[in-house]
Amino acid sequence: MSFLPESQTTHISTHTNEDIFIRDKSLCHDLIGKLNFTEMLFFQILGRVPSKAEAAVVDACLVTLMEHGLTPSALASRLVYSSATEAMQGAVAAGLLSVGSLFVGTMEGAAALIEQILAAENRQAEALKIAEAHKAARLPLPGFGHHMHKPDDPRSIRLFEVAAEQGVAGAHIDAIQKLSAAIDQTYGKHITINATGAIAAALGDCGVPAEIMRGFAIITRAAGLVGHIHEEQHKPAMRAIWEAADGAVPYESGPGKD
Amino acid sequence: MSFLPESQTTHISTHTNEDIFIRDKSLCHDLIGKLNFTEMLFFQILGRVPSKAEAAVVDACLVTLMEHGLTPSALASRLVYSSATEAMQGAVAAGLLSVGSLFVGTMEGAAALIEQILAAENRQAEALKIAEAHKAARLPLPGFGHHMHKPDDPRSIRLFEVAAEQGVAGAHIDAIQKLSAAIDQTYGKHITINATGAIAAALGDCGVPAEIMRGFAIITRAAGLVGHIHEEQHKPAMRAIWEAADGAVPYESGPGKD
Amino acid sequence: MSFLPESQTTHISTHTNEDIFIRDKSLCHDLIGKLNFTEMLFFQILGRVPSKAEAAVVDACLVTLMEHGLTPSALASRLVYSSATEAMQGAVAAGLLSVGSLFVGTMEGAAALIEQILAAENRQAEALKIAEAHKAARLPLPGFGHHMHKPDDPRSIRLFEVAAEQGVAGAHIDAIQKLSAAIDQTYGKHITINATGAIAAALGDCGVPAEIMRGFAIITRAAGLVGHIHEEQHKPAMRAIWEAADGAVPYESGPGKD
Amino acid sequence: MSFLPESQTTHISTHTNEDIFIRDKSLCHDLIGKLNFTEMLFFQILGRVPSKAEAAVVDACLVTLMEHGLTPSALASRLVYSSATEAMQGAVAAGLLSVGSLFVGTMEGAAALIEQILAAENRQAEALKIAEAHKAARLPLPGFGHHMHKPDDPRSIRLFEVAAEQGVAGAHIDAIQKLSAAIDQTYGKHITINATGAIAAALGDCGVPAEIMRGFAIITRAAGLVGHIHEEQHKPAMRAIWEAADGAVPYESGPGKD
Repeated sequence: MSFLPESQTTHISTHTNEDIFIRDKSLCHDLIGKLNFTEMLFFQILGRVPSKAEAAVVDACLVTLMEHGLTPSALASRLVYSSATEAMQGAVAAGLLSVGSLFVGTMEGAAALIEQILAAENRQAEALKIAEAHKAARLPLPGFGHHMHKPDDPRSIRLFEVAAEQGVAGAHIDAIQKLSAAIDQTYGKHITINATGAIAAALGDCGVPAEIMRGFAIITRAAGLVGHIHEEQHKPAMRAIWEAADGAVPYESGPGKD
Repeated sequence: MSFLPESQTTHISTHTNEDIFIRDKSLCHDLIGKLNFTEMLFFQILGRVPSKAEAAVVDACLVTLMEHGLTPSALASRLVYSSATEAMQGAVAAGLLSVGSLFVGTMEGAAALIEQILAAENRQAEALKIAEAHKAARLPLPGFGHHMHKPDDPRSIRLFEVAAEQGVAGAHIDAIQKLSAAIDQTYGKHITINATGAIAAALGDCGVPAEIMRGFAIITRAAGLVGHIHEEQHKPAMRAIWEAADGAVPYESGPGKD
Repeated sequence: MSFLPESQTTHISTHTNEDIFIRDKSLCHDLIGKLNFTEMLFFQILGRVPSKAEAAVVDACLVTLMEHGLTPSALASRLVYSSATEAMQGAVAAGLLSVGSLFVGTMEGAAALIEQILAAENRQAEALKIAEAHKAARLPLPGFGHHMHKPDDPRSIRLFEVAAEQGVAGAHIDAIQKLSAAIDQTYGKHITINATGAIAAALGDCGVPAEIMRGFAIITRAAGLVGHIHEEQHKPAMRAIWEAADGAVPYESGPGKD
Repeated sequence: MSFLPESQTTHISTHTNEDIFIRDKSLCHDLIGKLNFTEMLFFQILGRVPSKAEAAVVDACLVTLMEHGLTPSALASRLVYSSATEAMQGAVAAGLLSVGSLFVGTMEGAAALIEQILAAENRQAEALKIAEAHKAARLPLPGFGHHMHKPDDPRSIRLFEVAAEQGVAGAHIDAIQKLSAAIDQTYGKHITINATGAIAAALGDCGVPAEIMRGFAIITRAAGLVGHIHEEQHKPAMRAIWEAADGAVPYESGPGKD
């Protein structure tokens, strides 16, 4: 892993009259027209330009996480946007504030288990130990299981295919697959690696540390939310959401309804 | 009006080992146990302690604005809270981001009309001019009208009563009542002063400038949202809101539903 | 404590043509002009009107927490406000997003220790056990110690005075004082109960559960931030903050400065 | 331009047991591993997959806008992150709330002028009319001028090069260049098209409507802010920013400093 956070500059960027510099590269000569958005955001965050193969795997992860329908996050953005159309940034911010433990916690939990396995001398034994400990304590398995996609989450299969095609699949994907085998053995049934588990592993093999993975989810959710806001500009759903929500939560008492 | 923004200190507070000072007062000797929350927030924002009468009118305005049911603002807070219970501040922030043009724009618009009337030599004539200009241009009248509360918004009546009882009703309430008479005359029917119009006038008579009125709405909405979050802690409505919203916005096309 | 969260209505408010009802009270007849802001926010959040004495103690806590100078929270609000003056709510939201573990974590931590003591059969023994466990593990003591206010935080002394004067001081304040004695004994020196510890105890004796205490901090910080925004409207500090921050974080490398 | 907002589905996505569908495409078969992040976000927002040439121009715009050093936006994110590391989404949200009129207003203003020119029968005459009206009223020219980059903003030159190389330069870039010539003629000196002006034109030629351009700035700023947060994780600057800001804004009065 060539990622060296301690070599980051303290100011990420600086400038002269003729150019702007981001880390050690010229914005005008080395970056605009040379890097695509994914390569640039990886460079901005991690301090090195990813290989084409790594960028392709990061793309696959970002594409997977962008859109999930009318989730709490998209609903919050639409409600806020229609209340304050003069400040689109507030609507995106409101939606992003949902990207917390419930929605990305499992990705971070899966990344932590992967790192635990990678740090062990005997990875297969560590995977088994994790599976058994979770079963004994009836703990949820972050990155595993899906209420609907059975036997397997099709996104995980596809993400692992992309990583393999690109030659990026490495220790992290191997670790989650060891864990998957250990889980199936321990629980006596097949429990799929879900999309958040697959993404934790795939981003790990691209050199993205667990501590900043949530950032990647936030960036691509921002794009997803801008899509919802543009739809809200043309087909506003705020009133329908408001009325439906109001109807769904019955008022229980008080003289107002008597 | 004794409010002098130019006399504000640049740092609102400073401290020594023995005490903290906010503007020119000792936190421990002059403020804690001496001012109530309303007096303190008025002092913090405007640099002077309000009279008891002014504080009572500000209280009435803050009480009026705190809670409006399952509005977009409350919905956004509940959705975000249940997605990230570890960060309650994010849920309040998300709800506050809705306090934009749609919900407080009319209060600010009414305050602007009041200030226009107060700046005129002949206030009655100015009020008539405003009413006629709005009618001619078919513009909405900020601070006037309510789809449900007819003939009059009961909150406005109550707010004007409180201001009169407290001896605070002054030029601003007089101006909006002149405007109200001019509107009834011009439109040939009675259009109520609504709660946002009454609050704009009442806060104006307490010395709150239009430029910071939105801040008062934000503070009391923050309290309203904390109430919704505490209810969400005990009776979570997020799933019901999510499902109701999802059902209310029909999917139109695509192979997924075929 | 008569607080029963399970008796809360699911919709906090409802309305008819003539009035609005919040929980079981008429906004126009029972609340506007009858409750002050503190009583109303307590009623909104906890479902019961506080006694005058409880309201006075809550006031003292809210006054204590409102303003702390140019903290990260105030800086974030000022920076955002001057970048987007059209959306004051975004500036307040940005500042509130700072009200996380670093600034209110100790209040919640202190409240948890108080609840642990109150749940024990022998409270004095429990306090000693907590003190010894923290010393042995070299853990920080939430609600205790202050880098500057020695020997005692003057705000805590004042808050306990107010609670005593109002007759509200009860089991929670007693518990933190038991813990304080146990800490002094265990550590062999006096460590002050700081303001966050005192507030955790005082709010506890008013019937505010630990789970929603952060909400009270958020509400009063919102008021503090509106004060900073109003100052920013008249004496903008954004450029000075920006330049000072830029100068304080040296750029380390890259060709841009060669 | 084949973009038809009215043909957008109301739900952007739906799903079956075997797959997820976004608009009319299968996430697993058509999107993951097929589209890169830029193509996907364009598809999400605008409902069509961009051409490779368009995607390259959008990439160039996103790369240009991502990072600008320790701006108010980056400062707000760092301050909030270090105050609440448990909620990275709050830190990104706080920084994004700065993406308002001051920072992206000129891009939207330039886009509006471009659309005005494109709607005119005689575009050259319209450009001249705009230049003359702005000079007469001493209005700022959105998208033109830079305090440092003279005679020309190197980013604009590079963006136009990329658009030309990709064969995407069309009516929007032509319009801003007509406006540039008219401005130079009217003002009697060369005023550069700055980066925000060039981006408004380049995104316009890719089919991005002015109403959603701010969304593109928000997405790439989110990535920029995640970079600052990752740096803050390893080289925290919050204390330095706080102290520098505190020192830069002098306290003016009050007994606390006597």
